[in-house]
Amino acid sequence: MRWDDVGRQICSVARTTAILGDRWTMLLIREAFLGTRRFDEFRALTGASPQITATRLERLVKAGILRKAPYQERPTRYEYRLTPMGRDLHSALISLMTWGDKWLNDGRGVPNPLRHSTCGEITRPKLVCDCCDEAVGVENLISEPSARMQRQRHKMLAESAATEI
Amino acid sequence: MRWDDVGRQICSVARTTAILGDRWTMLLIREAFLGTRRFDEFRALTGASPQITATRLERLVKAGILRKAPYQERPTRYEYRLTPMGRDLHSALISLMTWGDKWLNDGRGVPNPLRHSTCGEITRPKLVCDCCDEAVGVENLISEPSARMQRQRHKMLAESAATEI
Repeated sequence: MRWDDVGRQICSVARTTAILGDRWTMLLIREAFLGTRRFDEFRALTGASPQITATRLERLVKAGILRKAPYQERPTRYEYRLTPMGRDLHSALISLMTWGDKWLNDGRGVPNPLRHSTCGEITRPKLVCDCCDEAVGVENLISEPSARMQRQRHKMLAESAATEI
Repeated sequence: MRWDDVGRQICSVARTTAILGDRWTMLLIREAFLGTRRFDEFRALTGASPQITATRLERLVKAGILRKAPYQERPTRYEYRLTPMGRDLHSALISLMTWGDKWLNDGRGVPNPLRHSTCGEITRPKLVCDCCDEAVGVENLISEPSARMQRQRHKMLAESAATEI
């Protein structure tokens, strides 16, 4: 399977990864949440080359995660802002960050602690059920893949087995 | 900056992305959570080539996210299982999946609904504060980057500006 086909898989993780699984893209999204808006700052603060910065920002615009807004005329210059779709990536970014804080730290403290303004405490957010508000985790969430999703998985297994014969 | 240097940035998102930002890696982790353990199934169900599957699985072993366990002798064959570090990626995977369910769906239903066995309902997990149990989001979480992290960001901006002159 070519990578371009992954975005057409039924699975939401596959579709999401087809957009965000690019190496520099998540860093650009992190920057957008930190308030970065201009090309040169995106480039400097991710460490990506100008060309990579340009193609990845345009891809995020095309995907609907960022939008371009003019901030200067003659010549017109644009800055990049999160759309509602982009802002909704906040939970995923926080989940990835807290995992990194725990497992990839260098023992010198959390790089970017988050304070919850509602209660005033430093928080390490956790996932709960939106029905009962109890904690959810790998031990109490059960996947119930749709018939379509199951068919696609069976097909991929069958095609792979056929290739091997 | 070369990509290999991103994993040495102080930011936890950068360190995490340096491991998971590879295009096929998140799909392999999805498979591990769905119960896939053997090489041929990882390959078939992600659609990755044998070579990509092999290098990415080994990288996940090296990173401590998967471990190899023998399931057959003469010749010894190994399967891949999530470590505690790997199992702890569950929240991030769920957050990415629910974002994809919402924003990248094709209008034909959620591909892989999750049932919360504790309450019995289909759930769309949400993030809450681990101190006060109230919802957290982009509107009430305040970043408080450490002095180290701030220094690194200032340095990246300054070096970039110097290059432009």
